[in-house]
Amino acid sequence: MNSLLERAKKLDASDVLAHKIDEFYLPDGLIYLDGNSLGPLSYAAQARVKEVVELQWGQSLIESWNSHNWISLPATVGDKIAPLLGAPKGSVVSCDSISVNLFKLLSAGLMYQQGASTSRPYILSQSDNFPTDLYMVQGLSQLMGKQKCELLSVPSHDIQTTLLEKGEQISVLMLSHVNFKNGDIIDIQAITELAHSKGVLVLWDVAHSAGVLPLQLEQWKVDFAVGCSYKYLNGGPGAPGFAYVAPALQAKLQQPLSGWMGHKAPFSFDHQYEKAPGIEQLLAGTPSIISMSTLEAALSVFDTLSVHTIRDKSIALNDFFQECIEPLLKTNLLTLACETNAANRGSQISFAHPDAYGICQALIAENVIADFRAPNILRIGFSPLFLSFQNIYDAANILSNIMRSKCYQNLEFQVRQRVT
Amino acid sequence: MNSLLERAKKLDASDVLAHKIDEFYLPDGLIYLDGNSLGPLSYAAQARVKEVVELQWGQSLIESWNSHNWISLPATVGDKIAPLLGAPKGSVVSCDSISVNLFKLLSAGLMYQQGASTSRPYILSQSDNFPTDLYMVQGLSQLMGKQKCELLSVPSHDIQTTLLEKGEQISVLMLSHVNFKNGDIIDIQAITELAHSKGVLVLWDVAHSAGVLPLQLEQWKVDFAVGCSYKYLNGGPGAPGFAYVAPALQAKLQQPLSGWMGHKAPFSFDHQYEKAPGIEQLLAGTPSIISMSTLEAALSVFDTLSVHTIRDKSIALNDFFQECIEPLLKTNLLTLACETNAANRGSQISFAHPDAYGICQALIAENVIADFRAPNILRIGFSPLFLSFQNIYDAANILSNIMRSKCYQNLEFQVRQRVT
Repeated sequence: MNSLLERAKKLDASDVLAHKIDEFYLPDGLIYLDGNSLGPLSYAAQARVKEVVELQWGQSLIESWNSHNWISLPATVGDKIAPLLGAPKGSVVSCDSISVNLFKLLSAGLMYQQGASTSRPYILSQSDNFPTDLYMVQGLSQLMGKQKCELLSVPSHDIQTTLLEKGEQISVLMLSHVNFKNGDIIDIQAITELAHSKGVLVLWDVAHSAGVLPLQLEQWKVDFAVGCSYKYLNGGPGAPGFAYVAPALQAKLQQPLSGWMGHKAPFSFDHQYEKAPGIEQLLAGTPSIISMSTLEAALSVFDTLSVHTIRDKSIALNDFFQECIEPLLKTNLLTLACETNAANRGSQISFAHPDAYGICQALIAENVIADFRAPNILRIGFSPLFLSFQNIYDAANILSNIMRSKCYQNLEFQVRQRVT
Repeated sequence: MNSLLERAKKLDASDVLAHKIDEFYLPDGLIYLDGNSLGPLSYAAQARVKEVVELQWGQSLIESWNSHNWISLPATVGDKIAPLLGAPKGSVVSCDSISVNLFKLLSAGLMYQQGASTSRPYILSQSDNFPTDLYMVQGLSQLMGKQKCELLSVPSHDIQTTLLEKGEQISVLMLSHVNFKNGDIIDIQAITELAHSKGVLVLWDVAHSAGVLPLQLEQWKVDFAVGCSYKYLNGGPGAPGFAYVAPALQAKLQQPLSGWMGHKAPFSFDHQYEKAPGIEQLLAGTPSIISMSTLEAALSVFDTLSVHTIRDKSIALNDFFQECIEPLLKTNLLTLACETNAANRGSQISFAHPDAYGICQALIAENVIADFRAPNILRIGFSPLFLSFQNIYDAANILSNIMRSKCYQNLEFQVRQRVT
């Protein structure tokens, strides 16, 4: 047995999260390195879907809003996500998508700031933020006019300088905690503090950190956060997003997607909107109960876990993968497109390669699922709850064979168009 | 056998939709008169949930976006809803909730109108419209300022006069086709024509008519429509909403919730938003695939049906119920709170009674599910796909006994707080 395989086996033997794989429903023989795009089905989620559809909807019908507490689901699920974010009870709600939740919080933030002053037209962000985050500001800007809302996007390394130079003109700073392509991590606490010193509200997108990186939103004095629950939270395809609002801000805000579920008394059918006092003020329309209930069950996988334990394993998997493919890096068969130290990046590793698309397809053909991100990034994600070190060892071997054989240049790996 | 029971049996024997009940999963002994609030589970939906969760998500994971065509689901489902609306292919999309879709279309309509002229600040609506419709305008108004967006709500009977008098100041007319409380129907074609003559765009909320009243959105030259799919379309609790945009308008609009799924090339990860050319431009974030796929299957119940056949049975059920409870009306034990002629109202009947809440609870205790709508409305819905005339006869008998015995005054029926 070679020494890397031996190491893999030893690491697996001492892995305190090793038993967690039994909670997931994964196809035999698949090495799934894309839990950062769509987390897998858990047995808890599978059982809940059947329950919510057949017993609740099927048998209790409309009465389920009371008897199965559908009406509280957005807040219940929010409270289950909260501990993963270092957020207190009543500060997180599950609803809509990241995009829609960004719109609510950005516009609420703008209205709040501009109530005091109209000289803060900018929403500052990273130019390499996830596109939907930037698009939502563009849409809001078009609606409100540039004198009230304008996107200011700068490279990540210029965020601090821009805050210092233009802070007084910025209403909201909107950043991704972990970059979706290269896994770069931003220091939430430091940047939030700097922004606050300029009177700027801060909104963090934690889509690529929730459930896998320790977060302390309350302690770091974060104002707003959004995230999705279909990545590391394993909530299912298109599972509802979540939104966080610091408790102290909740009374002061008004968000414009003021649908009936965010009303303080939805079933009084008042003609005048009055927001709910708590985090439910962020609700708009009726939530997708089947998807949200599935998510609630999926979260039970985290019940007894510390995110620190998860992060430790994430770094170890990431380190071990990098060690296994070191010969590829040394011979320039692959080039890192991320921080070289796994502790300095999210739960992923990225490579830049002109044939990244073909390499990704060649991996899929060998039952290793990774991600291609246009135009030239191969992205590999490490979900610590269901991956073993042996998986990592096998995946690295398969990738090495692909890179050495250059089979990714074969036509069969070039033609299909993946959409995700 | 009394003559009404005999009639019920005869009507059932000649009911061309009688076989449809076999497609639904309904609890034994339940008479469900609330399909207008939450439609029941169909066997097709039940099977699809299992498939999308266990086979698609569970086995194909991220690849399902391609292999199971999740990426096209919003448009595919839209095209399945379109025939029920009299709308052409490519004019309807399934996404988000009614509330969120209202915001997109109202703000797109305002921006479109105000591109040409700034003298149209008003969104005109009925003062007794469903609350969320009014709330969304209030939220938009708060964001844009009253000089750009203001809700003008008038009683239904004043809509025409207001259009004639203030049409030039109105950007969008937003109306519900069927009133949620009393079932009043508005003549879409006549009102749309009048609004257009004043340069006003028209948005119809068809939540209470889609799937049960014939609609001809294209022929009636409707600009926008929204609706929900958890009522007569039986898509499941909180199933995604849908939105219609007249094909000719699609190229001219920009909606502000410009998330990545509405981009013309979502996976190119461009930094600049460019809307998709077709109806997909209304998408914002990642859709709830489990809920949307469930809805798609639920729609198969309509595959071979004409909405006219459904409407004919709806009126017949409604008429028959009214006939059965005529003694209650004559003795003033109940008072109609709707049009007296079933053909002039939606697929429902409403009664005003100070004890409406208790009556509703007393019905539930007898396994008859109806709806209470604050403050004093008992609402009974007729979903023609799974109700028999015998159901109607039985329900009317139970209601009659309750009204005569006044058992709704018992404490047990007064204390519980229903939320829906």
